[in-house]
Amino acid sequence: MSAQNSRSAVEPPSARTRVRKSERADYDRAVIDAILDEALTCHVGFAVDGQPYVIPTIHARIEDRLYVHGAPATRMLRVMRGGTPVCVTVTLLDGLVMARSAFHHSMNYRSVVVLGNATVVEDPDEKLAALRVIVEHIASGRWVDCRRPNPKELAQTQVLSVLVSEASAKVRTGPPVDDDADHDLDVWAGVIPLRLSASAPVPDPLLRPALTAPDYAVNYERSR
Amino acid sequence: MSAQNSRSAVEPPSARTRVRKSERADYDRAVIDAILDEALTCHVGFAVDGQPYVIPTIHARIEDRLYVHGAPATRMLRVMRGGTPVCVTVTLLDGLVMARSAFHHSMNYRSVVVLGNATVVEDPDEKLAALRVIVEHIASGRWVDCRRPNPKELAQTQVLSVLVSEASAKVRTGPPVDDDADHDLDVWAGVIPLRLSASAPVPDPLLRPALTAPDYAVNYERSR
Repeated sequence: MSAQNSRSAVEPPSARTRVRKSERADYDRAVIDAILDEALTCHVGFAVDGQPYVIPTIHARIEDRLYVHGAPATRMLRVMRGGTPVCVTVTLLDGLVMARSAFHHSMNYRSVVVLGNATVVEDPDEKLAALRVIVEHIASGRWVDCRRPNPKELAQTQVLSVLVSEASAKVRTGPPVDDDADHDLDVWAGVIPLRLSASAPVPDPLLRPALTAPDYAVNYERSR
Repeated sequence: MSAQNSRSAVEPPSARTRVRKSERADYDRAVIDAILDEALTCHVGFAVDGQPYVIPTIHARIEDRLYVHGAPATRMLRVMRGGTPVCVTVTLLDGLVMARSAFHHSMNYRSVVVLGNATVVEDPDEKLAALRVIVEHIASGRWVDCRRPNPKELAQTQVLSVLVSEASAKVRTGPPVDDDADHDLDVWAGVIPLRLSASAPVPDPLLRPALTAPDYAVNYERSR
């Protein structure tokens, strides 16, 4: 694999999070945290009677803890709070890699896999801090603008945390890597960059006319 | 929940794929297929010794079969071809839903969960058809432009299929749904639409100068 895919790496914390293609692996916490923080959603994996489930949800991080939340009755939260092993994966898709050969087509991406067990956040301060960071994860500045949760809403919301300890990142960047023999082919090769983009905010039809959209809604991408 | 979130729904195929918030559920194959086809990547869940793993990968669909592929040595393929239960989830993020209350913040999305067991695709014609549809899933028209796999590359690639049978879609659309009492608050509410957008293709630095980018690379979003 080519040099542009290599990353500085330290020893992985476990055989379970070791990435097979080592030149794409990264076990550095700063890299892992940056990917976790940029991704708006994660996919949580858990198993029930041997059947895995993968559920998309929003997450947010405070230091070495990832937080997810939901109604206590959801299957995801019911299973997670039982202490079962979980896997939280986030993926940022950065580009489509078009090689000259079908075989070497790929994607540029940054992904993180976190293995662990979830803990119910019982402490009221930690719970409120987690909900704050989840709302702020959607848009920085939103927490102070909106009505914060009242006691009834807090009771209807469960927050769980997973320690970011057994984790790995996988990153692919750069152009396609074709076989030398294919470079003479009459086939265009390159990367189509992809990103999640925001368009103009759509006001709630019930919005009072005097209220204008905040900067983080009008200039969402710039404000992140 | 508001009317804009309701969908026509038939009975779910199993208790395992029933969506708890029924007004967001959809078990219609046309809805499920459209989401599977639009999403560029999926997240595959499988468990090893009780530990779930969630791995991002590209997928593509032919009729009622989802195909994934990779090097036979990857953990995902090694585990999947053992016949273990898997979960394939795709998620399209459509918008950030900003309610007046922190509690009612949400996201607009379309997701599909498929439960099943993977089968190794041994038939050479089905295998080639699957690889074709995976490349075409990246960009329509790419398969005829690029060099197709040779026997050595085919031997280095394993293709697995999962039947799209036990599956459900979950869809949220529309504006925030606030408590009536919150409508008088001085808080802007609305949706920030999100989509995966492409920018101008970046040619491979090794590209021969005479080769120009094909239309599906220059106008990627329009060509999908």
